[in-house]
Amino acid sequence: MTGSEQLLRGYLSDNAAGAAPEVLAAVAAAAAGPAAPYGTDPLSQAVYRRFEELFERPVAVFPVSTGSAANGIALAALTPPWGSVLAHPDAHIDNDEAGAPEFFTNGAKIVPVGGAHSKIDPEALRAAAGRKRGDVHSVQPSVLSITQATETGSVYSVAELETLTGIAGEAGLRVHMDGARFANALAALGATPAELSWRSGVDVLSFGATKNGTMTADAIVCFDPALATELAFRHKRGGQLTAKMRFQTAQLGAYLTDDLWLRSAAHANAMAERLRAGLAAAPGVRVAGELGANILFCHFPAALTAGLRERGYAFYADRWEPGVVRLVTSFAHRPADIDDLLAAVRALTQNA
Amino acid sequence: MTGSEQLLRGYLSDNAAGAAPEVLAAVAAAAAGPAAPYGTDPLSQAVYRRFEELFERPVAVFPVSTGSAANGIALAALTPPWGSVLAHPDAHIDNDEAGAPEFFTNGAKIVPVGGAHSKIDPEALRAAAGRKRGDVHSVQPSVLSITQATETGSVYSVAELETLTGIAGEAGLRVHMDGARFANALAALGATPAELSWRSGVDVLSFGATKNGTMTADAIVCFDPALATELAFRHKRGGQLTAKMRFQTAQLGAYLTDDLWLRSAAHANAMAERLRAGLAAAPGVRVAGELGANILFCHFPAALTAGLRERGYAFYADRWEPGVVRLVTSFAHRPADIDDLLAAVRALTQNA
Amino acid sequence: MTGSEQLLRGYLSDNAAGAAPEVLAAVAAAAAGPAAPYGTDPLSQAVYRRFEELFERPVAVFPVSTGSAANGIALAALTPPWGSVLAHPDAHIDNDEAGAPEFFTNGAKIVPVGGAHSKIDPEALRAAAGRKRGDVHSVQPSVLSITQATETGSVYSVAELETLTGIAGEAGLRVHMDGARFANALAALGATPAELSWRSGVDVLSFGATKNGTMTADAIVCFDPALATELAFRHKRGGQLTAKMRFQTAQLGAYLTDDLWLRSAAHANAMAERLRAGLAAAPGVRVAGELGANILFCHFPAALTAGLRERGYAFYADRWEPGVVRLVTSFAHRPADIDDLLAAVRALTQNA
Amino acid sequence: MTGSEQLLRGYLSDNAAGAAPEVLAAVAAAAAGPAAPYGTDPLSQAVYRRFEELFERPVAVFPVSTGSAANGIALAALTPPWGSVLAHPDAHIDNDEAGAPEFFTNGAKIVPVGGAHSKIDPEALRAAAGRKRGDVHSVQPSVLSITQATETGSVYSVAELETLTGIAGEAGLRVHMDGARFANALAALGATPAELSWRSGVDVLSFGATKNGTMTADAIVCFDPALATELAFRHKRGGQLTAKMRFQTAQLGAYLTDDLWLRSAAHANAMAERLRAGLAAAPGVRVAGELGANILFCHFPAALTAGLRERGYAFYADRWEPGVVRLVTSFAHRPADIDDLLAAVRALTQNA
Repeated sequence: MTGSEQLLRGYLSDNAAGAAPEVLAAVAAAAAGPAAPYGTDPLSQAVYRRFEELFERPVAVFPVSTGSAANGIALAALTPPWGSVLAHPDAHIDNDEAGAPEFFTNGAKIVPVGGAHSKIDPEALRAAAGRKRGDVHSVQPSVLSITQATETGSVYSVAELETLTGIAGEAGLRVHMDGARFANALAALGATPAELSWRSGVDVLSFGATKNGTMTADAIVCFDPALATELAFRHKRGGQLTAKMRFQTAQLGAYLTDDLWLRSAAHANAMAERLRAGLAAAPGVRVAGELGANILFCHFPAALTAGLRERGYAFYADRWEPGVVRLVTSFAHRPADIDDLLAAVRALTQNA
Repeated sequence: MTGSEQLLRGYLSDNAAGAAPEVLAAVAAAAAGPAAPYGTDPLSQAVYRRFEELFERPVAVFPVSTGSAANGIALAALTPPWGSVLAHPDAHIDNDEAGAPEFFTNGAKIVPVGGAHSKIDPEALRAAAGRKRGDVHSVQPSVLSITQATETGSVYSVAELETLTGIAGEAGLRVHMDGARFANALAALGATPAELSWRSGVDVLSFGATKNGTMTADAIVCFDPALATELAFRHKRGGQLTAKMRFQTAQLGAYLTDDLWLRSAAHANAMAERLRAGLAAAPGVRVAGELGANILFCHFPAALTAGLRERGYAFYADRWEPGVVRLVTSFAHRPADIDDLLAAVRALTQNA
Repeated sequence: MTGSEQLLRGYLSDNAAGAAPEVLAAVAAAAAGPAAPYGTDPLSQAVYRRFEELFERPVAVFPVSTGSAANGIALAALTPPWGSVLAHPDAHIDNDEAGAPEFFTNGAKIVPVGGAHSKIDPEALRAAAGRKRGDVHSVQPSVLSITQATETGSVYSVAELETLTGIAGEAGLRVHMDGARFANALAALGATPAELSWRSGVDVLSFGATKNGTMTADAIVCFDPALATELAFRHKRGGQLTAKMRFQTAQLGAYLTDDLWLRSAAHANAMAERLRAGLAAAPGVRVAGELGANILFCHFPAALTAGLRERGYAFYADRWEPGVVRLVTSFAHRPADIDDLLAAVRALTQNA
Repeated sequence: MTGSEQLLRGYLSDNAAGAAPEVLAAVAAAAAGPAAPYGTDPLSQAVYRRFEELFERPVAVFPVSTGSAANGIALAALTPPWGSVLAHPDAHIDNDEAGAPEFFTNGAKIVPVGGAHSKIDPEALRAAAGRKRGDVHSVQPSVLSITQATETGSVYSVAELETLTGIAGEAGLRVHMDGARFANALAALGATPAELSWRSGVDVLSFGATKNGTMTADAIVCFDPALATELAFRHKRGGQLTAKMRFQTAQLGAYLTDDLWLRSAAHANAMAERLRAGLAAAPGVRVAGELGANILFCHFPAALTAGLRERGYAFYADRWEPGVVRLVTSFAHRPADIDDLLAAVRALTQNA
């Protein structure tokens, strides 16, 4: 199977996509000459300013090579080691990072707070935020971590965010946002970066970019100037201060230029919606969850899952519950790719 | 000043150079289509095998974005938290990583072991390796960390390495090599990668590539199969397991193809030697240290330092001792760049 | 209220009791002359041998001042930082130690595994022990931690222990026992120390003594010789290697002499049973849980709780659920104390 | 050899002494009845207030079982993980705690700052405190740690302390005092506890008591109210919040009553001075160091060392340098013990 065929049939994750051509071009442009190291070069400085324009305020930006590094370093600046991080049971930080948050925070505890569609329930948050406060025998609720868009493709509205961060604020919690798919949430909601972050009460944002078009560049975006110095040291000490930083900032610069990030995310979202609409019509298929971004959860008959896999389609099935499949779209999927999958679904379900 | 002029006059560090064209081309080639994530893709797998060919044995390879991450993660797999890492007082791990080794190892201690020209003295090592062994009140000597080439441009011969690792072995210490400039050492010595690493007793190598032509890709190379699983978890948990790993392995693959890495390093070394030879003839200049790789330490008269800086030449001066300057060459310096600097030195010292 | 009255009416916790007279006498005897420090003195050595006699095999013993230190240091020797510790949701290590296990282990994760009466369910354990094994994105199940007797007063039988440790063994997990009330479990079951620990598959035991008669002396008891050196360094580095160790070992020695520990625990258990029998007859009172040791959970009418508190009785109520109270007995409660409480209960419930 | 003979001939360390009778009596008094746990009992509260009277200001007190725990927890509250702790090369925290400070601080670095007689030199401190400030590649000077009295028996005068803490303050460093022998320093200088601590610029004091008469009770004394909550959590999480805290506070209470601590320390100091005066007259013996407290360093002829050991006298020799011996006195040495040793010295040196 060629790379092109893989893309056609690949729905495992948006992290399988390549890089946006604009991102590659920016890296190539940065490669020619020398530059000052560690992000002190003019290109990196310009990209940091670009973040400030987009977020409409001063921010401190720390490029990283993974979302786990972004989350771990950000959380370490927000919680003391004896603190707890309140997060949804589906949160990436609790399930998919092999304990990186515990490592970076020197042993803070992630405490699950439930809610439908992978979104934290306000009342559950209120209860958890008040639990054992001031009790020296217990970790202290210190951070609310919100994934936006969530791990199952749903999106918090601005109002929903403000409700949660309001509760957090009353309880003295800081707010972290895991924005591995932040652009997808922006595109889904038509909100501005400021509205979905600091104006909604977010202190530090893990700014995901890799899944949506960069190569190995995400970033920590910090809205609290009091945390900037600490983050700089944690970033260095965490092994993320690259010497040739311009090769990461070049990626981020292209990503943020001419709305590439928003266009790419909107496209990925649209491909998921195209998929959803098509699957909803298929016999035996039930769309689950609350689609907002580019991740779709469905119930598939076992024969459909098997049939699609035989034809080379790749996606996760039976990982969360028996019969449940996950399909993720990216900026690189074309409408024809989606239609191809839907045709296969139709063929397989008509046979059934 | 344009980028080209910066290069002409830039001797601050080899980390200021851009990327090798072959590295950029490989990244571009990897960008087109989708690929399996986290290094499970065919390109990454082929690069891992390439490491095995070059090192003439099975190895476990973990790409990282910084040398600090390589060193920190490698050391964490080699020492318990109550261990000490014996390293030269000039070692990067002790001076330039803001405590990253202490962070990754959960608080192991770096203990300095002196020696001329930034190279660990065997007798000093023997004494340090035996100090307070079995005393529960003291950290226990656990790792010998050797920088090859050293921070001041000297190089350990194979015999020198074997002497040190022999002492380490007798004392039960594991051996780490900080190879931020490993290729420069190989080129200087004409040795094979195997000879300068596991055949000389090295357990884990921080394989530097960024200073010599990649963009943001170094690697941990592990020669002890018993440590591979632990390293995989520490690498993930340390925030270094990138989703689109192929963009790092593509860099490393190009770097290791057709001897690019060795040719680039040999060139950088030759540029340093050209510089050394020219400066040795300059009145008032004294070449210090033991040149082997691409870093040159000299004593400059204050007027020479000032004069060169006025003309736009960039290098560190008075940082280690008054009057001492450091000049670093890279794969990107051309003979004409060196000659240009030497001409300026001549002009300034004749005036004096 | 005098101390004696406090005892009469105190059921908050067995940690409120004083010290056994034998323990105090041993401390006094140890106080007179000088002794070698750090447990190298003859008294400490004799006590360590006493542990070996009682456990019928060589063991390594490390006295500590708190159960949190015992648990944290023991777990750190049993799990890598990227491991998970499987424990019941009621476990002290997850609820009452302010993250000490995460601190000592450098960020391992405690994963809850449910079961009735605070006892881990074997099938739930089997499922948890196999979850995401070998997946580098997830913490790896590494330790089973069993509390014996449990936090709600129940006790695992030898057969129940062996079932759990058998599952753990098949899955490659090490076994930790939080024996804060180990003596109470021994007394309840009539088993030997060996049967309830290493013969049942326990690798390291947090040997609680403070609640049952010592002053500030618990101990880590290690049955795996391969872990002894590591524990010695973790114990020192964790701030638990006291200079005048004999003042802790003297306590433990007296505790283990002439079955003091077993007699004290049996007495505390009997007081709880006396309480249970009396309360079971009281109108409106419902005994919950599975009494085996010295902790009793009941449902009390609100008026009963209020009435008892007015009369000076101290116990936790409404902390776990509304209407649920916890009563803990210790070696220091006398039958008359229990009868006094029961008389008050009768008076209050007859009034109702 | 009986315990009494051991004392007669024991000069290894003041940690070999037993407990003061007053301390034992207080523990016995505390043992009788029940009490509220974790230091919330009236006795503990009274002892905390006693500290406030003695230090003439509000303080937060956290009893611990070892000086290593006191130092580690105190330093963790004073330095960020990327900070450095400036301490003398002879400091206990750097030499004798197996990395406990690095463990508790999550990897801060101890940086040696030299000076004669184990006392930090002001100019060396000034240089170290300013090194690489604001450089993200380096740990940041964060804490000055002063041992008072020092590890070799010398004592900082109030003026010397103020000079050092003044330099620290100008550089933005916090100040920790390792007061393992704080009482000996007080007795030597005739200063008040306040003068030797917060009035001299100390933020947190490791208050040693064990070597001078308690059994297993030292304490952290915090003069900065802003650090009290953090210390409470670090103390709990570090495994030092004992359930039956009154057994530690009883020791501290007796220690601080009727000047027991000062009388005991003054006696130990006087015994050292008696020893010094006698040894100074012995042929071939040279007293080294700067005696202030209860530790004496001397040069002994090898025959004298051997002869004393043959006669059963215990002390360290040849540990620091060949020919150098250390003799430590405690509250428990009697004048006759000293005279006995001096007689042996005279006999042995006359023979020579």
